[in-house]
Amino acid sequence: MNYRFILKTLGSLLLIESIGMAPSLFISMYNRQNDMMAFIITIAITGIIGFALTRINAANEKVKAREGLVLVSLGWILVSLFGCLPFIISGVIPSFVDAFFETVSGFTTTGATILGDVEVLPRGLLFWRSFSHWLGGMGILVFTIAVIPAMGAGGFHVFKAEATGPTADKIVPRMKDTAKILYITYSSITLAAIFLLKLGGMTFFESSIHAFGTIGTGGFSTRNASIGAFDSTYTQVVVALLMVLSGVNFYLYFTLYKRKWKDVIKNEELRFYLSIVLISTILVSINIKSMYHSLGEALRHAFFQVSSIITTTGYMTVNFDEWPTFSKGILFVLMFVGGCAGSTAGSIKVIRILALLKQIKAEILRLVHPRAVISVKIDNHPISAGALSSIASFFILYIIVFVLGTLVVSLEGVGLVSAASAVSATLGNIGPGFEFVGPLRNFGELSIYSKLLLSLLMLLGRLELFTLISLFIPRFWK
Amino acid sequence: MNYRFILKTLGSLLLIESIGMAPSLFISMYNRQNDMMAFIITIAITGIIGFALTRINAANEKVKAREGLVLVSLGWILVSLFGCLPFIISGVIPSFVDAFFETVSGFTTTGATILGDVEVLPRGLLFWRSFSHWLGGMGILVFTIAVIPAMGAGGFHVFKAEATGPTADKIVPRMKDTAKILYITYSSITLAAIFLLKLGGMTFFESSIHAFGTIGTGGFSTRNASIGAFDSTYTQVVVALLMVLSGVNFYLYFTLYKRKWKDVIKNEELRFYLSIVLISTILVSINIKSMYHSLGEALRHAFFQVSSIITTTGYMTVNFDEWPTFSKGILFVLMFVGGCAGSTAGSIKVIRILALLKQIKAEILRLVHPRAVISVKIDNHPISAGALSSIASFFILYIIVFVLGTLVVSLEGVGLVSAASAVSATLGNIGPGFEFVGPLRNFGELSIYSKLLLSLLMLLGRLELFTLISLFIPRFWK
Repeated sequence: MNYRFILKTLGSLLLIESIGMAPSLFISMYNRQNDMMAFIITIAITGIIGFALTRINAANEKVKAREGLVLVSLGWILVSLFGCLPFIISGVIPSFVDAFFETVSGFTTTGATILGDVEVLPRGLLFWRSFSHWLGGMGILVFTIAVIPAMGAGGFHVFKAEATGPTADKIVPRMKDTAKILYITYSSITLAAIFLLKLGGMTFFESSIHAFGTIGTGGFSTRNASIGAFDSTYTQVVVALLMVLSGVNFYLYFTLYKRKWKDVIKNEELRFYLSIVLISTILVSINIKSMYHSLGEALRHAFFQVSSIITTTGYMTVNFDEWPTFSKGILFVLMFVGGCAGSTAGSIKVIRILALLKQIKAEILRLVHPRAVISVKIDNHPISAGALSSIASFFILYIIVFVLGTLVVSLEGVGLVSAASAVSATLGNIGPGFEFVGPLRNFGELSIYSKLLLSLLMLLGRLELFTLISLFIPRFWK
Repeated sequence: MNYRFILKTLGSLLLIESIGMAPSLFISMYNRQNDMMAFIITIAITGIIGFALTRINAANEKVKAREGLVLVSLGWILVSLFGCLPFIISGVIPSFVDAFFETVSGFTTTGATILGDVEVLPRGLLFWRSFSHWLGGMGILVFTIAVIPAMGAGGFHVFKAEATGPTADKIVPRMKDTAKILYITYSSITLAAIFLLKLGGMTFFESSIHAFGTIGTGGFSTRNASIGAFDSTYTQVVVALLMVLSGVNFYLYFTLYKRKWKDVIKNEELRFYLSIVLISTILVSINIKSMYHSLGEALRHAFFQVSSIITTTGYMTVNFDEWPTFSKGILFVLMFVGGCAGSTAGSIKVIRILALLKQIKAEILRLVHPRAVISVKIDNHPISAGALSSIASFFILYIIVFVLGTLVVSLEGVGLVSAASAVSATLGNIGPGFEFVGPLRNFGELSIYSKLLLSLLMLLGRLELFTLISLFIPRFWK
């Protein structure tokens, strides 16, 4: 194991994080609030440790799959550990477990909170909390390019420009280019979102925070009632549309920029994703119609909530926990779908569901015509048996982690729906769940054991399970 | 499609069914109850139609996979349609949908009932209801040998004597021998069960009915309180043990008979199955301890309920819906495990879960050591990639059917746990679920749409999904 390389890279990560805290410090200084010292101390600690680590001599920079796995796992944990310091030092969230939960929730773009009242938070901390969504979302995009393809899922042309698929074993020259394109796209969309939300009447501070939460598919808000606090059809529809756009594979925006319209229109994952959003919205709005003044209002809330859950954002306009069982059931299912690959959305992802449905169809055809040769294709590219196997394993492992997590959380004495939704909302990086952890409630009342477990699940989900789990098998360290 | 062959074989099946109703008629005649005429009419109708169909000339007896799929699907549906006539004609269950549900529940060894009070039923019908479990269980054993192996799951030596795996395309000479061995085993264990239960104080009538329900892993009882009505530790422990034994691959009993002890002891599926029963029993009994007088009593109820659910029987000694969420959660998970392959238990089956866990482990090892060759083995036999793929597809399709079914049932306005457990209890051929369809309640209050859907799910689960679903894809009929 190349520890020198890992420590040196982690140092750079901490340096970036300390710089990333600067805007929050400025906001705190501008508002002369009591979280200023907390940011100064944290920036100093994080910056010094980060700088010290970057001085490590790592001449032997040979990096294999194992180093990549350790680096990514430790990176997310370390960033969350240092990122929670402002909450603890300022005394706003005195408990370490609570502060860690809140920070992991931020960086993993989950948006689950332990706070009952976010409106009393100092503005610097409020900004840091949401900015971590945006930084986390950016991190996910790099991660998606650098690690996912090595796991087989990227093999089927998620990133068409990198048809061969970059691997963690060697640094692919074009990876940096792709990352740059994604950063530019991500930043542009965020700026556009800030502008559009400001147009709707939000302050610059609030429009920035909600842009981070929307484009990073996070879900932290400045208001306890989330987007429901902004009683404007414009704002609610704009956020809903931006969420849908943030669940799209970011590489498709580059394809669009290169005017390859046909590639975008014909993209099977995109079509399937939009179909799910459309059908779910229609079904939910019919089901909740009688609860609202007009079909239009029902349609708006249905569209907003469907978009919010499938993209794993977690914003809300109404208390959807009061909706009929059928609508809640659909939202529960969407928690396991997630957005497209190559987006900041979490959960299982549309392309995996699509591939698995095609595999099942192929399996049935093989049963009917035992001698026929049937291959599974997406966008006219055949998917290898190995890739299909790792997608199926991912799906099944996801279900297993969900089930085991639910069993442990059920020891809290909450109902099955509460326990199951607390787990699916964190594992899928969504945010709110149902009942005990419903939209108007929070994760604060759970025990510290559950909070630590759910923090771990947020990281597990964000790192797509295998990365973190592989570190726990003995043969990894041999 | 060789329709002549299909119709002729269905004729034989109906003839067997009409003969199978004779014991119920005798019981009805002996008790001089009002269900006598219903049996006479049904036996006549079923027998005449069956006999007429067997007269079809099917000289061209070439049978391929497609004919096998149609035959098995139609067979189960037809047997249920004729089997529900005694309930309708006698006026005991006047609604066709209710009678169909009850009969499908019988033949598929589910044990879910629409009856609020079974104790008022005439004895002939009570016997027929439970005898259908036993006939269904026997049918499953043939089905397991004849069709499952063609689907790849049998490829991994479920039936070691048939290492190459018989296929539906050609009649394998040894299949008949295997079937004979299984029938003898099945009948012997049933006789032993009747004897053991009679020893505990049950009448011959009640011990027969509960033997059919136990060995067929069905769950229909003569009492509303199920096995809880027999307030005897002996009876409850004996039923629990017999359920566990009925969830074991029946071929292992033959192996035992041939004194190949080592093969039985080393059998990985058996070990995994017994470990799940053991661990679940311990966890549940600790969790429910405070609800009962002693740890012994808690242990007995925990062992009984764990065995009942994992073997998809559905008997109960107490109202487990009152247990804490954690225990209910464990039972919910066991609903998706089921017994061993080659048993009368339904659901996903232990060997599939075992194979998938091994595949996930292999997938993680491949991530850590990308160049290593890692194969998945059960009982030292490597499992082919094709078999693993079809097992994974089965698991995922099972989850998809469960989720879609739950969404439809949730339109009834019941809670998520009620809807989800109604679906998992029928799809897994278990019987009772939680809350609205809990142990002390029944499926009678659901709408006819839900009852028809759940009847379909019982058949889908029993025929292991693919068989029935393949008939609904257009390419099947080309």
